[in-house]
Amino acid sequence: MIVEIVTTGSELLLGQIVNTNAAYMSSRLNDLGFDVLYQTTVGDNHDRMKAVLEHALSRADIVITSGGLGPTQGDITKEVSAEIFGRKMKVHEESKRRMEEKFIQRHVTWTENNMRQVILPEGAEVFLNYNGIASGVVLENNGKYLINLPGPPSEMKDMFERSLKPFLKRKFGFKHVIVSKVLNTMGLGESLLETKIKDLILAQSNPTLALLIRPAGVIIRITAKADTREQAEILIEEMEAKIRERVGKYIYSIDDEKMEQVVAKLLKDNCLKVACAESCTGGMLSQRLTSIPGSSAYLDGSVVTYSNDIKMKFLCVDENLLKSKGAVCAEVAGQMAEGIMQLMEANLGIGITGIAGPTGGSKEKPVGLVYIAVAGKYGTKVTENYFSGERDQIRYRATQQALSMLRHYIMEHDKL
Amino acid sequence: MIVEIVTTGSELLLGQIVNTNAAYMSSRLNDLGFDVLYQTTVGDNHDRMKAVLEHALSRADIVITSGGLGPTQGDITKEVSAEIFGRKMKVHEESKRRMEEKFIQRHVTWTENNMRQVILPEGAEVFLNYNGIASGVVLENNGKYLINLPGPPSEMKDMFERSLKPFLKRKFGFKHVIVSKVLNTMGLGESLLETKIKDLILAQSNPTLALLIRPAGVIIRITAKADTREQAEILIEEMEAKIRERVGKYIYSIDDEKMEQVVAKLLKDNCLKVACAESCTGGMLSQRLTSIPGSSAYLDGSVVTYSNDIKMKFLCVDENLLKSKGAVCAEVAGQMAEGIMQLMEANLGIGITGIAGPTGGSKEKPVGLVYIAVAGKYGTKVTENYFSGERDQIRYRATQQALSMLRHYIMEHDKL
Repeated sequence: MIVEIVTTGSELLLGQIVNTNAAYMSSRLNDLGFDVLYQTTVGDNHDRMKAVLEHALSRADIVITSGGLGPTQGDITKEVSAEIFGRKMKVHEESKRRMEEKFIQRHVTWTENNMRQVILPEGAEVFLNYNGIASGVVLENNGKYLINLPGPPSEMKDMFERSLKPFLKRKFGFKHVIVSKVLNTMGLGESLLETKIKDLILAQSNPTLALLIRPAGVIIRITAKADTREQAEILIEEMEAKIRERVGKYIYSIDDEKMEQVVAKLLKDNCLKVACAESCTGGMLSQRLTSIPGSSAYLDGSVVTYSNDIKMKFLCVDENLLKSKGAVCAEVAGQMAEGIMQLMEANLGIGITGIAGPTGGSKEKPVGLVYIAVAGKYGTKVTENYFSGERDQIRYRATQQALSMLRHYIMEHDKL
Repeated sequence: MIVEIVTTGSELLLGQIVNTNAAYMSSRLNDLGFDVLYQTTVGDNHDRMKAVLEHALSRADIVITSGGLGPTQGDITKEVSAEIFGRKMKVHEESKRRMEEKFIQRHVTWTENNMRQVILPEGAEVFLNYNGIASGVVLENNGKYLINLPGPPSEMKDMFERSLKPFLKRKFGFKHVIVSKVLNTMGLGESLLETKIKDLILAQSNPTLALLIRPAGVIIRITAKADTREQAEILIEEMEAKIRERVGKYIYSIDDEKMEQVVAKLLKDNCLKVACAESCTGGMLSQRLTSIPGSSAYLDGSVVTYSNDIKMKFLCVDENLLKSKGAVCAEVAGQMAEGIMQLMEANLGIGITGIAGPTGGSKEKPVGLVYIAVAGKYGTKVTENYFSGERDQIRYRATQQALSMLRHYIMEHDKL
């Protein structure tokens, strides 16, 4: 069954609010095995809304709207929908009774325009609103469904789960389910990653593969369609195994798990303490490491060392080195990592020094050049990185790379 | 001119990401006086995308897409657009040259599929990408415009402001303008703020007033419509003056200016250096202070002091105090602020200690309790704060309050 989601409301067209309803409904409908092929947003204008809904009904089997069920003159979705299906509007007694009860409960003063919320298309299946007043409706006409849900997310979501989902199950059963799994990768660019699994992407049918760029790296999304979740998961496992054969070492987590969570777990499991000496990232790495509850288990302290004096004073970075090569070089990063490890008496130390921009770059040392070092019992590892983007993107990518290096350092060495 | 925004990408139809691009473009286009009447989302499917774009061109004068300009097989927006306008695709030399430069600069391995990003429709006006590689294009055919922008928000926004806006101005001028101004407030709750300016909100017509809650505080948005920007700005000025009479001291910045930018400017203008000692915020405050270019002018260094040992060792926090009252109390915050000020030889010191949660709270010291101190020549000021929300919200609110206290400390004292 093809579904189109039509969200209504001028605030969406004015860009005053972000359309979270479309994302929520799409995500849930896909989980239930429906294909959402279109999302359309139109304002509270009779002619345009009517044209949009009629066009939607011409290319989809099920059209689900959100918004425009309220008491004001601008709320016209129900009326337009009824018009398209040639239905009269009449008071829905149960909705009316429940509304009146609510007004009494809440000691809210009654205004006549509230009646608009309980005047519904004749012969419609009604979804009562347990989070508000405006009822939802389902209109059906030779196999096409037009479903009106309220706009406020809390009301829409409650009605979706409580009434729409059971309705869809009753009408269509759920022939199949769609399950997705995301593999988060770090260390390979999008195009390089694609070349390594291109044949899998081109040969894809079920499961399907998609590569998406995220600030934290490139993600591989595997999406499988099957009769049961179990079968879908088996399909995903088979594909995941093939992908891991090619690029396994670059996959650091699954689905929503962040790099800092992965690293935090590694540190805890190995009873390790880490300390950071941050120059261009200015505390962002420590902030990410401490964003995990219980981070005091693996981090006692860190320093932000912006000036050379502080680098020398706290981290014992060699003054002559700073004079000869400048603060942004591999050796300084290494000394920062070793210095902070000793200063905080930690098992591992991280040093970051670079040019976050937008100014301060040169031909030899361009904006985005960042040296990152990880120091530990097995020596100090330094990388030279060229990150693109704006100041904060460069800073974020530097912390992501630092966490990735920390992860590899811990995984590759025993008994740190 | 009627505009339709067409966002492409399966991840939108799967509900895996929220469509912030549509909101951003709509908001900006409305500011420029264009009527965005439709927003449509379609997947990376040739036939459906072509049908959607053709339908969009039939009801709108300007169709702006985002997404599908990348290097992978799924990126087809340019090709479909060219097909609709009957244009051949050919290598765009300047885009190619810039891409090759970037690859050399960043030492990234080249793969052939990157070429897809610089093969553009013949005769198209090209928007170069200053935040990435894929160029944007404008196709025109008897008065209808089809404009392709990249999908990643940072690239889309940069191209919108840098290239699309000037293009639209050149082509259409801007008839009436809608100008908005945002007053960022901190220190008053939404309802309290509303009561202080309620009469202004109720009496509003042009300009209009809106109160919106943001993580950084409550914002007041003033929106005026006029023939010229100058006239709109006069309307806004009059309203702003009335608002400032009531709540001026709570307004810390205008529009997109962040609290850290305000504080950075104050520090620079007064030639002051600040140093932070962060416990529960774990580096977030230093990270925000150093997110401003040139932050080395006012910050030499900071420390993250999670453990009590580190608090004693670096900040000379009194051991008996830590034993008797614990790390989360006003006195410890004060000693942390004074300690870091001396350690870093700064003019101002900030100390933050609290319980970010989700665990570690008690009846006397609940999750969200954070003590924040600012130390300087004129003594140490400490506040006791109870922040709501999740761990990272609590941490963020603590840094926002710390910056606000720093701002007031600097403004209220001369010659620090």
